[in-house]
Amino acid sequence: MNEAPTDRTRIRRIATNGHYDAATLHAIIDDAYLCHIAFGDAKGAHCIPTACWREGDYLYIHGSNGSRMLKRLMDGECCVTITHLDGLVLARSAFNHSMNYRSAMIYGRFEVVDAAGARHAMEAFMEKLVPGRQAEIRPGSDKEYAATTVMRIPLTEAACKIRSGLPGDDEEDLSWPAWAGVLPFARTQQAPITDPACTLPAPDYVQRWQQG
Amino acid sequence: MNEAPTDRTRIRRIATNGHYDAATLHAIIDDAYLCHIAFGDAKGAHCIPTACWREGDYLYIHGSNGSRMLKRLMDGECCVTITHLDGLVLARSAFNHSMNYRSAMIYGRFEVVDAAGARHAMEAFMEKLVPGRQAEIRPGSDKEYAATTVMRIPLTEAACKIRSGLPGDDEEDLSWPAWAGVLPFARTQQAPITDPACTLPAPDYVQRWQQG
Repeated sequence: MNEAPTDRTRIRRIATNGHYDAATLHAIIDDAYLCHIAFGDAKGAHCIPTACWREGDYLYIHGSNGSRMLKRLMDGECCVTITHLDGLVLARSAFNHSMNYRSAMIYGRFEVVDAAGARHAMEAFMEKLVPGRQAEIRPGSDKEYAATTVMRIPLTEAACKIRSGLPGDDEEDLSWPAWAGVLPFARTQQAPITDPACTLPAPDYVQRWQQG
Repeated sequence: MNEAPTDRTRIRRIATNGHYDAATLHAIIDDAYLCHIAFGDAKGAHCIPTACWREGDYLYIHGSNGSRMLKRLMDGECCVTITHLDGLVLARSAFNHSMNYRSAMIYGRFEVVDAAGARHAMEAFMEKLVPGRQAEIRPGSDKEYAATTVMRIPLTEAACKIRSGLPGDDEEDLSWPAWAGVLPFARTQQAPITDPACTLPAPDYVQRWQQG
């Protein structure tokens, strides 16, 4: 699919950086641990960061039953955005400087996941965070699950925008004597920090963490 | 200042993670290259990522004069959010798993920066991105500046929320035999990529990039 699903998802500015296919969208979501959600209420527009994960064609979030955001999201539509910053793009001219990034926007309405689905979804979330860990930890109790709301939004109305690669200077600037290229960023995994109260050996997934 | 400036900036959930002082806010903004902005219009709520920087007590953004977002931001209030993900927090119980993060939310209204201020602000942006580079590049022309809108929002109505440190398991879970600790993330600088069309030697700031 290379057409925007709706008018409000159609990329206008540098439209060639727009992508509307599921594979691109899934890859951007799966590389993220959190999203920002925009919604409005009587106090104005809010932009709240929260953990997210994907299963199939849905993006999932969770929170306490008392969360004001989750209550608002039950009432109306919102916009969920994920952005990965990949680098600074250094052109010869000031105005052709840019950033490399991958972003996804999803419009629509969250629905509450039922009790059985919520257990499954929370275990899928753990599996995404740290594969294999679910079997080791103290599982959620009925009381903990009862206090937690899991919600999901379909990925049907979404758009991605990606900039990658080298700077795009204007022809007449190519001879300007300034270095040109990309200064890349990456999200990297740093040395694990063991809880001093924990005397257990580090499991494989902890030992491997810093190797990324 | 350790009081929320307004009702809508008061942190309710785990209120002890809330911070309202300028030093904390400035540090979170200054460590960011982009923010997410929530605003509403006739098509719903939108959550748009955009580059940002700070000077004094203002957060700045810029874009083309034709940007729909910038036009909407002239008309009303919005919410600007920055979030840094610092690590996965692995507790013994599923439900005490968490993430370490630093986030800032700013409510208010952007104002357009005048022509002289815009030039100064764009140069400050370049200095933040790559200190020292402004003197080397082809500076913005009158035409380029005329096509660009710079806006700023005061940092007066803002709140930060930070989680750091070890997992917080319940007392009765401390003997559960699962490794506990933090798997940290960092945004790191990767090897610079030189534009193949550029034959100039890499300046100091490029050579130093990967050392972070």
